[in-house]
Amino acid sequence: MKVIEKIREATAANDSRAVFSFEFFPPKTEDGVDNLFERMERMVAHNPSFCDITWGAGGSTADLTLEIANRMQNMVCVETMMHLTCTNMPVEKIDHALETIKSNGIQNVLALRGDPPHGQDKFVQVEGGFACALDLVKHIRSKYGDYFGITVAGYPEGHPDVIQDGVAPPEAYQNDLAYLKRKVDAGADLIVTQLFYDTDIFLKFVNDCRQIGITVPIVPGIMPINNFKGFLRMTGFCKTKIPPEIMAALEPIKDNEEAVRAYGIHLGTEMCKKIMASGIRTLHLYTLNMEKSALAILMNLGLVEESKIARPLPWRRPANVFRVKENVRPIFWANRPKSYISRTVGWDQYPHGRWGDSRNASYGALSDYQFLRPRSRDKKLHEEWAVPLKNVEDIYEKFMKFCLGKLRTSPWTELDGLQPETKIITEQLGNINLKGFLTINSQPAVNGAKSDSPSVGWGGPGGYVYQKAYLEFFCSPEKLNALVDKCKIFQSLTYMAVNKEGTWKSNINNTDVNAVTWGVFPAKEIIQPTVVDPQSFMVWKDEAFEIWSRGWAKLYPEDDPSRKLLEEVQSKYYLVSLVDNDYVHGDLFAVFKDI
Amino acid sequence: MKVIEKIREATAANDSRAVFSFEFFPPKTEDGVDNLFERMERMVAHNPSFCDITWGAGGSTADLTLEIANRMQNMVCVETMMHLTCTNMPVEKIDHALETIKSNGIQNVLALRGDPPHGQDKFVQVEGGFACALDLVKHIRSKYGDYFGITVAGYPEGHPDVIQDGVAPPEAYQNDLAYLKRKVDAGADLIVTQLFYDTDIFLKFVNDCRQIGITVPIVPGIMPINNFKGFLRMTGFCKTKIPPEIMAALEPIKDNEEAVRAYGIHLGTEMCKKIMASGIRTLHLYTLNMEKSALAILMNLGLVEESKIARPLPWRRPANVFRVKENVRPIFWANRPKSYISRTVGWDQYPHGRWGDSRNASYGALSDYQFLRPRSRDKKLHEEWAVPLKNVEDIYEKFMKFCLGKLRTSPWTELDGLQPETKIITEQLGNINLKGFLTINSQPAVNGAKSDSPSVGWGGPGGYVYQKAYLEFFCSPEKLNALVDKCKIFQSLTYMAVNKEGTWKSNINNTDVNAVTWGVFPAKEIIQPTVVDPQSFMVWKDEAFEIWSRGWAKLYPEDDPSRKLLEEVQSKYYLVSLVDNDYVHGDLFAVFKDI
Repeated sequence: MKVIEKIREATAANDSRAVFSFEFFPPKTEDGVDNLFERMERMVAHNPSFCDITWGAGGSTADLTLEIANRMQNMVCVETMMHLTCTNMPVEKIDHALETIKSNGIQNVLALRGDPPHGQDKFVQVEGGFACALDLVKHIRSKYGDYFGITVAGYPEGHPDVIQDGVAPPEAYQNDLAYLKRKVDAGADLIVTQLFYDTDIFLKFVNDCRQIGITVPIVPGIMPINNFKGFLRMTGFCKTKIPPEIMAALEPIKDNEEAVRAYGIHLGTEMCKKIMASGIRTLHLYTLNMEKSALAILMNLGLVEESKIARPLPWRRPANVFRVKENVRPIFWANRPKSYISRTVGWDQYPHGRWGDSRNASYGALSDYQFLRPRSRDKKLHEEWAVPLKNVEDIYEKFMKFCLGKLRTSPWTELDGLQPETKIITEQLGNINLKGFLTINSQPAVNGAKSDSPSVGWGGPGGYVYQKAYLEFFCSPEKLNALVDKCKIFQSLTYMAVNKEGTWKSNINNTDVNAVTWGVFPAKEIIQPTVVDPQSFMVWKDEAFEIWSRGWAKLYPEDDPSRKLLEEVQSKYYLVSLVDNDYVHGDLFAVFKDI
Repeated sequence: MKVIEKIREATAANDSRAVFSFEFFPPKTEDGVDNLFERMERMVAHNPSFCDITWGAGGSTADLTLEIANRMQNMVCVETMMHLTCTNMPVEKIDHALETIKSNGIQNVLALRGDPPHGQDKFVQVEGGFACALDLVKHIRSKYGDYFGITVAGYPEGHPDVIQDGVAPPEAYQNDLAYLKRKVDAGADLIVTQLFYDTDIFLKFVNDCRQIGITVPIVPGIMPINNFKGFLRMTGFCKTKIPPEIMAALEPIKDNEEAVRAYGIHLGTEMCKKIMASGIRTLHLYTLNMEKSALAILMNLGLVEESKIARPLPWRRPANVFRVKENVRPIFWANRPKSYISRTVGWDQYPHGRWGDSRNASYGALSDYQFLRPRSRDKKLHEEWAVPLKNVEDIYEKFMKFCLGKLRTSPWTELDGLQPETKIITEQLGNINLKGFLTINSQPAVNGAKSDSPSVGWGGPGGYVYQKAYLEFFCSPEKLNALVDKCKIFQSLTYMAVNKEGTWKSNINNTDVNAVTWGVFPAKEIIQPTVVDPQSFMVWKDEAFEIWSRGWAKLYPEDDPSRKLLEEVQSKYYLVSLVDNDYVHGDLFAVFKDI
């Protein structure tokens, strides 16, 4: 979706709160990239209207920027705006970048001229490239029509190139404004400003823009002060005016980083308050890849609440323009959403957004991708799981400990720790794991909780949400037989079980799709975003069994007895999906009582 | 659906109860037809696997049979099997009949040679027609391929034509069996037998059929004895053997019709028990258009229960093969289902059976059909509604009385009296009608009732069903304004209102489809069969307003002041659809309290 549409939608409501966005840059190391994505996951949970990623100066990190943008849009599932500059970019390279993000379902570009190439003072037009952002805007509109939302930069104090002795001459400032209007007239639909610390200058700039007929939203760029030296370097580079009272406040605390950051949060909050008081409902935060100050400012403004993370669906809604209508998913990938997304990337058709209609769509084959994990978590996983295993009871204990929160990682989950709703049933989960029912997925029953409940709610206020209790686990054939017997008494239970070879046991038909999460909202049809579906279960089981070897056993040396044990379990055990259809009076754990 | 498939499905389950069917014949008078359909509605509520309608002897009532079959399949919504005979039927007439029922979504034919033409003793092949049922079966299969399920008649005692002195000679009986096998080999997939009273003869016949390789189900035809003279006439005509113990039992009570009928029920029950004990799970009842004896036998057998009429959906599921997948309907036609069916008859495409996808499908235009009602009810309607009206309060009173059950008819409903669930809220409805909110449709809120609840349940056992409270009414513009004001406080309410000219007032978007009935079942997606939908509301409102004139005002002479009053209300009032989205804690009637 275009950012401008998101902003219009969000600010159209009468009681609209302000919306906000975060800017990141491509880290220099691989570990840095891992860390950035972990941070992004946490920040995106607060529902920014978009995030943007800068373009490497001189195009040096171009490929990395494209890859990060792709992962942001499709894995983190946040509406992503990619910066694109003219520096060292012949038109073929520009089109390569635009085609790439277009095919990845990204719809937003921030079009910039860019800084001078590395080691030079002045911007130089590359052969076959563009001289300025205006040309880039024109090119995008003429070649890609209406597909992209285009954002351009606004300079409240004038472009640094024209600032002399800390201020732009009036004529240069006016030329700059006129140039901005030309960028908008050429097709830009949004302006994000350069950073500033004098709020009056920004407000005057907005007013000046309106005077000459610029009507698109102008989003203030706010950079929280994190440390004194960085602040001086950045404002120097951008030739940003520093109001004397700010310098006076910083000078006495400049060596106390903690105090500087606290002041930065205070200052950012006050600036935003003043801006919002003028009627502006959009804020853009230059995070410098750090989360604390940005979130603290938003918290001060009441725009994020730690305890109230609103989920539009029980799972992270896709941002990719080609799959935004997706509103149903099989439950099996709940702990491996990235694996699910990468396997289904080939689904370019979601008829009516109904997952159920895509039965015949081919899931992507099992690929290495599904076994990639951020390197920083690999170490932790190795530490927690690659320990000697004497017998199956040692395996049971691992699963039990993960359920009780005593381990942070599991080979079967991409996420950190447990989902909040799982915590409701940790003790019961621990018990059945010790009995040899090795759970890898679960949800408690929910009978009409308010849709804004912090633990199980989704879809916004005013509705009621429901869940059928669900368990997914590995167990031995003997334990499965005992369970199957008891299911004849516990009539509200339905199960599917399959081993690595594909031997199938179930008390449902293989066409029975079971909605296990649904919500009822005012003036809406029933929304049923999570299902248990036999056909996708058969696709998932290959991955689930594969994790025994590729996710766990391979952590040991080749002939290690622990590895042998794991491979034996992998070859013998069943994967079982168990639903209690009585979400009103049922007790899913009762069936395990005498097993 | 083909009857053979329904029988296979029903008898496949391990714990299968027997299935049953009813046979009717075309009545001779129009009132008789009206009465037959009222009776059929009641009998179909007990869920027969099909009903059949006989073909007029000599083809005299051919058109009537076609019309009745159409109404059975599409209005009563019962799987219908039409008899078709060769008597006086050149092939063009046969094809006309078959094309007609095919286009009406009927898939079942009982192929017969038929009786001799009126006034003759022997069957005569008409020019350009067929000589026997076998030729008819062959014709249907060759011309219509696999579309029709074909049933043929079996004669446990041999065909009457070959019965001499009360019994068929062994050779003739064997020839008859061989002929039956040829009919099956030519494409018949089901056998229904001639009536009989000696169960042993029937069981021997079944065994004889199996011996010569007839494998299709053989359904016994049971005719309950209703009165002695009719019994003698029928058994004489069919040359049916009467076991001496039956005659001995009837002789002493032959003049006591009540006693004969009671014996008939007893005898029918015993015959069916013996048949079912032999493993046969299908029963066909020759009703002679009467309901009591047939239902009494089924009740004795435990196959119908007065109190447990299972509804597969909140509304009667279509039997028409072209719309069996229909599983969503707008609520507006709840009291005029036949009008809805006739308006949507042109929808030959129900993608995935989702009503929501058919938004652009054209509803049939308002036609006279939608204002037809059985003549027997017309009289009652006139009696109850065509009374002098002095002022609007007299109108209010009419609506109020209908809600309280003090009137049986209403111009706005095709059904007799109130739906059972409406009775839960009659008093509240009466109150608001007296205030000038003239209700024509309503349902109470239901928060997770068991799906086999007699009043609000549907979909079979094991699930939970829900409803949002719903009201639909006419009211004056002033009353509407008061209501709109109060809806700002009662935030769980959504409404749409429109007057005859199309002036629209609402607090929802015109694309918001609201599910107001839904059900949650084991191993199923959520089923949401009834919706409130703005687009179909606009179609319905024409019909709803038209009923003021065509359904009510036209009952008065042209210049009658009552008629004038009704036309004034029609031109000024709004039609309002009101939903309480809080089905858990809401109270839809609270909003009317101080109006």
